[in-house]
Amino acid sequence: MRYSPDRKPVVTLAAGPVDSYPEVLNALSRTVLYDYDPAFQGFYERVVDKAQKALRLSNKPVIMHGEPVLGLEAAAASLITPQDTVLNLASGVYGKGFGYWAKRYSPNLLEIEVPYNEAIDPQSVEDMLKKHPEITIISVCHHDTPSATINPIDAIGALSARHGAYMIVDAVSSFAGMDTHPEECHADIYVTGPGKCLGAPPALTMLGVSDRAWAKMKGNAAAPRASMLSIVDWENAWSRERPFPFTPSVADVNGLDAALDLYLGEGPENVWARHALTARAMRAGVQAMGLSVWAASEAIASPTCTAVRTPEGIDEAQMRKLARERYGVVFSSGRGETLGKLTRVGHMGTTAHPIYALTALPALGGAYAALGRKVDIGAGVEAALAVIDA
Amino acid sequence: MRYSPDRKPVVTLAAGPVDSYPEVLNALSRTVLYDYDPAFQGFYERVVDKAQKALRLSNKPVIMHGEPVLGLEAAAASLITPQDTVLNLASGVYGKGFGYWAKRYSPNLLEIEVPYNEAIDPQSVEDMLKKHPEITIISVCHHDTPSATINPIDAIGALSARHGAYMIVDAVSSFAGMDTHPEECHADIYVTGPGKCLGAPPALTMLGVSDRAWAKMKGNAAAPRASMLSIVDWENAWSRERPFPFTPSVADVNGLDAALDLYLGEGPENVWARHALTARAMRAGVQAMGLSVWAASEAIASPTCTAVRTPEGIDEAQMRKLARERYGVVFSSGRGETLGKLTRVGHMGTTAHPIYALTALPALGGAYAALGRKVDIGAGVEAALAVIDA
Amino acid sequence: MRYSPDRKPVVTLAAGPVDSYPEVLNALSRTVLYDYDPAFQGFYERVVDKAQKALRLSNKPVIMHGEPVLGLEAAAASLITPQDTVLNLASGVYGKGFGYWAKRYSPNLLEIEVPYNEAIDPQSVEDMLKKHPEITIISVCHHDTPSATINPIDAIGALSARHGAYMIVDAVSSFAGMDTHPEECHADIYVTGPGKCLGAPPALTMLGVSDRAWAKMKGNAAAPRASMLSIVDWENAWSRERPFPFTPSVADVNGLDAALDLYLGEGPENVWARHALTARAMRAGVQAMGLSVWAASEAIASPTCTAVRTPEGIDEAQMRKLARERYGVVFSSGRGETLGKLTRVGHMGTTAHPIYALTALPALGGAYAALGRKVDIGAGVEAALAVIDA
Amino acid sequence: MRYSPDRKPVVTLAAGPVDSYPEVLNALSRTVLYDYDPAFQGFYERVVDKAQKALRLSNKPVIMHGEPVLGLEAAAASLITPQDTVLNLASGVYGKGFGYWAKRYSPNLLEIEVPYNEAIDPQSVEDMLKKHPEITIISVCHHDTPSATINPIDAIGALSARHGAYMIVDAVSSFAGMDTHPEECHADIYVTGPGKCLGAPPALTMLGVSDRAWAKMKGNAAAPRASMLSIVDWENAWSRERPFPFTPSVADVNGLDAALDLYLGEGPENVWARHALTARAMRAGVQAMGLSVWAASEAIASPTCTAVRTPEGIDEAQMRKLARERYGVVFSSGRGETLGKLTRVGHMGTTAHPIYALTALPALGGAYAALGRKVDIGAGVEAALAVIDA
Repeated sequence: MRYSPDRKPVVTLAAGPVDSYPEVLNALSRTVLYDYDPAFQGFYERVVDKAQKALRLSNKPVIMHGEPVLGLEAAAASLITPQDTVLNLASGVYGKGFGYWAKRYSPNLLEIEVPYNEAIDPQSVEDMLKKHPEITIISVCHHDTPSATINPIDAIGALSARHGAYMIVDAVSSFAGMDTHPEECHADIYVTGPGKCLGAPPALTMLGVSDRAWAKMKGNAAAPRASMLSIVDWENAWSRERPFPFTPSVADVNGLDAALDLYLGEGPENVWARHALTARAMRAGVQAMGLSVWAASEAIASPTCTAVRTPEGIDEAQMRKLARERYGVVFSSGRGETLGKLTRVGHMGTTAHPIYALTALPALGGAYAALGRKVDIGAGVEAALAVIDA
Repeated sequence: MRYSPDRKPVVTLAAGPVDSYPEVLNALSRTVLYDYDPAFQGFYERVVDKAQKALRLSNKPVIMHGEPVLGLEAAAASLITPQDTVLNLASGVYGKGFGYWAKRYSPNLLEIEVPYNEAIDPQSVEDMLKKHPEITIISVCHHDTPSATINPIDAIGALSARHGAYMIVDAVSSFAGMDTHPEECHADIYVTGPGKCLGAPPALTMLGVSDRAWAKMKGNAAAPRASMLSIVDWENAWSRERPFPFTPSVADVNGLDAALDLYLGEGPENVWARHALTARAMRAGVQAMGLSVWAASEAIASPTCTAVRTPEGIDEAQMRKLARERYGVVFSSGRGETLGKLTRVGHMGTTAHPIYALTALPALGGAYAALGRKVDIGAGVEAALAVIDA
Repeated sequence: MRYSPDRKPVVTLAAGPVDSYPEVLNALSRTVLYDYDPAFQGFYERVVDKAQKALRLSNKPVIMHGEPVLGLEAAAASLITPQDTVLNLASGVYGKGFGYWAKRYSPNLLEIEVPYNEAIDPQSVEDMLKKHPEITIISVCHHDTPSATINPIDAIGALSARHGAYMIVDAVSSFAGMDTHPEECHADIYVTGPGKCLGAPPALTMLGVSDRAWAKMKGNAAAPRASMLSIVDWENAWSRERPFPFTPSVADVNGLDAALDLYLGEGPENVWARHALTARAMRAGVQAMGLSVWAASEAIASPTCTAVRTPEGIDEAQMRKLARERYGVVFSSGRGETLGKLTRVGHMGTTAHPIYALTALPALGGAYAALGRKVDIGAGVEAALAVIDA
Repeated sequence: MRYSPDRKPVVTLAAGPVDSYPEVLNALSRTVLYDYDPAFQGFYERVVDKAQKALRLSNKPVIMHGEPVLGLEAAAASLITPQDTVLNLASGVYGKGFGYWAKRYSPNLLEIEVPYNEAIDPQSVEDMLKKHPEITIISVCHHDTPSATINPIDAIGALSARHGAYMIVDAVSSFAGMDTHPEECHADIYVTGPGKCLGAPPALTMLGVSDRAWAKMKGNAAAPRASMLSIVDWENAWSRERPFPFTPSVADVNGLDAALDLYLGEGPENVWARHALTARAMRAGVQAMGLSVWAASEAIASPTCTAVRTPEGIDEAQMRKLARERYGVVFSSGRGETLGKLTRVGHMGTTAHPIYALTALPALGGAYAALGRKVDIGAGVEAALAVIDA
């Protein structure tokens, strides 16, 4: 029995987009209201309020109507001017990538780059800030998904705040899967979205924007306006009294509403706990199976995704193809520099349940075994189970 | 009995977004597949094929992952260079608005502007092209929704083609509601979306791009790349063999798929016919009621939306408020220059059925009457019925 | 333009099943839980609690897992024994029909029958009870849908209670559309369902059962047990601690849950008000149009359905066919004795909004006119509007 | 981390109802059409046609509007008369249970009963038929779900046909999960439903009825008519030209339609194959883990459900409670006589994928281990994987 690539897989354990919660899928089917209708405008304000609560913000977050790359690009375009000096922190493909956007808006780019299985050391940031008092903006990716590693943004943010820099944080695949919020890490623009740990489709961005970032962007004449890339146009769009700059993605907002209800209703701490436990079980299983986790240390391994280092001699794409074909299970590859070097098993939203580690391990192990790699699948499952049962 | 602004209305006859077809709403609830999964990539290719068929294109259309203002802004950003001279045709708020985007990318902007209840005369375009052989790009809005009027884009396109200019067409609220397709009007970039006559939510753009527009954009070093605004990044994204530049809006693509199935399954000619008949019945009813249609002539009145001129002394916003409060019926206001001067009744997708003209007329008439305007509602309904029964 | 009988109509104004509220349709898509799962059992108990609240009962109602004919048949089979004398009140096809079921379980059947456009006079019931002290059970249909007339069940129930009889009430198409509840009318078995005024699909029954009816049924050895027709098997099924006699219709229970939430959330009084106003507007319109309402008097005309008397010489089926073909509007015929003599326009659940009277009138009028009947449609619409605006 | 009994579990591997396919859940949200509307009547006819194709029948099957106990009870009530002698074959709780219904309609009941982990031996049927030529009806449960064992109905049916008896088959939880069809087994009434291997909600029955069964039922004056229990009332209800005896469960029919599309679209043989492989993997895993399968032999173990014998000293209910609490995985208990003696793991519809055996095994094993039972979970998973990979 083989699963066809043309048919839906059975279980998707990818690094996102992940399948949405059933409640979110149902919410996507709600009536598509006219965006100028007062019922929609009131609803939109309530969704922003829920997002504010989830993000633990003291001001209103912004919903942008495209997937989070829109938010990241818009942040760069709106906040960074040629007068700024940007310190970009690169511990992976996504962090590195932000540097290219930063460079588009300012020629003054500094970078700290570490191997893509490590995390940024706050000490190195502190040193850099001392050496370069001209730094005005720090950019960092919290969970560099192609590496499944976590950067210490709270510590970095404290340094940034002390220095007086603005900080842009990409928290797309960490927010709602672990304890991270914009104000805790002193982020000035904090970018996340519904398509990862919130378990909704990937078509919106949520932005936490500090008051000083609002001021800087509004003072930046080059910041996008009358544009899809504009953040400033949306400043007051949350209010039921204000029109939208353009048409919001009504169905996706319906989905986000349900996702936020689920998140707040289950209790953020409970949601984080099941993400963390799933990842811990997964890592224990991977190691007991005789494989290794990509992250250099347990401390920086992501609770929302596990990257398994590709063993010598294994064709990673072939392995994933086999896992899908034989078991109907989908994993993610690496991206860019990590492509081929690792396989990612997502633990996000609907799949952030420990039982999915127990599902993932034999599928992963079976696929490796089929390629001739010796793995102890039984030991892997038992180790994962021991973590869950602990 | 009064309908609360905080609750959903009963019938939305707005100018879009309109409520989606039930089949589309259901499709939004489909499993959110991982965008790199082969099943999704194959599905995406099939959706693009359906869009190609609906657009009657000889090459692949592009799906962009934001509402059509994204497509319009991207078209301006990608096609227009400072070396271009753009002739912008403005017969309404949206047509006029495109000029601002054009100006962002080229200082050389010419414009033909007519009163906002009239349409562009092809003769004026021909004259302008003769006088300005340097014109390289023509931009035009097919259905200027805030006026509910239609421009003769097929005739204009023929002139453009003869002149050798590129033509950018905004067909957002006309495509799929009447007989219009990119190649028929010689459009080089033809922008439309699912949120109007296709009866799906408003979160995507569909772009028809001619081969020469592809060449021009790819040759334009300033055209957005690695950007939400990029068209060129998506050139080959339709192919199941190619990765996506960023994550597509999976749920919205699911909805678009169903919308295209409905459109092709019902038969485009049948869909157009019910849009046209609804609008004709509406206009007959409006006039028989003692009101007047905004469009200067029947010939240019849109089949997908009817704009009713606000009678002297009537507060248009108050009228719509009353229609919603008393009857649960939502209409659209004008926009910008037409705000307050007219009320728009949408006939798009699910609401493009003649019975909705019979629903709209008493709601509209009742609201005017409540404000003291004498209207002959009975005559209006009978006139509309006569059109339908003809 | 003609609507095909093979395609969905545009607006269904039938006497039920009516289309469900969008929120109910979405709820039908919820996860189908295992009926023995504690989460389902707890959920089921909460749904019964909501039904209890909606029915304003002091004890737990029963949900039966088939459309309300199941409840009615089960009531007859469970409550009526050969020792009983049943007084069946027949003011229409449904009331009359219950007599056949009653007869199946007891040979002693008395009946009061009135013309099918009239209602039962409580005085006649009082007289009958005096004449026949042996009467132990009274059965009555509240809203005899094939006539769209209402019987005074509160008054009849008071007589029944004083007499000491049990009363079985068919409130299938009245409950949730007007002020009627089991205990107010002293019903011992009160049968209703989600498919009419609650705006959910028609696959369940809700039963209000008085304590004495429970006692009588449990004492009746011939009452169905281990049977689809059993009521007594379900006595304690509401409790999360008790197993179900057989598998409940999980998806339909999900839908009922949402329907009850909507009903309680909107406020029963508000829901009744919009049913009543829609019907009043409809009747005014029908009469102003030159047609007549089937019900002998305004006082007994149903607020949840309007029956329009078929004018002389009109083929009623042909008229409905034309209304569907030309306008996409579906009405109901009569049933049995009323078939051909009237047309029913439902005002139930989603369609119980006055605007639908304004939609129904031209569709109805247009179809009559097409058959040569002179109708003043304009006057009809204006009269309906006057009622709504009053 | 503990899963609350008040919240939905993560994975339901019960013996049914099982969660529906996503496509079925979406279909439940389709517009609820009026049952007398020609579009619904045509749709209903097409659904019956699909059911006919799936059942491989030469005549039209009947859809009854209640879960399959309705069909079973109705079959007994309609086909069995006091003149009949019924041979009931009891290899489990459900088979045994049918005898009680048979007895209700005829005093002449013979029975072959075997231990509830065994299957009926066709030889014993042959012997009984020889000894009791007066037998006119044979009743048998194909998959006695509370035992997860399969009876050889094709062989029994051949004997029945040769004898000239009518055969009633309960194929509720086998049909669509393995190669079984009414005519292959000479069933005269073959009862199944959408809630098990078809992956739809449990609110309908599908009946295959042979021509001679139709004749016998129609000739039976005591067969239910004008009743929820009637089969004969529904004989022609499949036809778009005929009215329904009462209101069909519109939403459930919508779901059935989608379920049949999926089944026929995937290919019945492919569907059976994944059911079978999942069960084989599960059994191999159970045994390798050091537990035993309830079924006396591999040959009679069901491909749609696996019953695991409760080890000595284990509280079965407690074990399932732990599996749900720790892993969010739901299994089924036994029923009646098998309650406490076994645990059932369903492989039906959406869960009939081998990966779910790999999910079930550690959850089952972990729960046993928590109760002190020594199990080799690693060995179990590896054995299951070996079956899948074979």
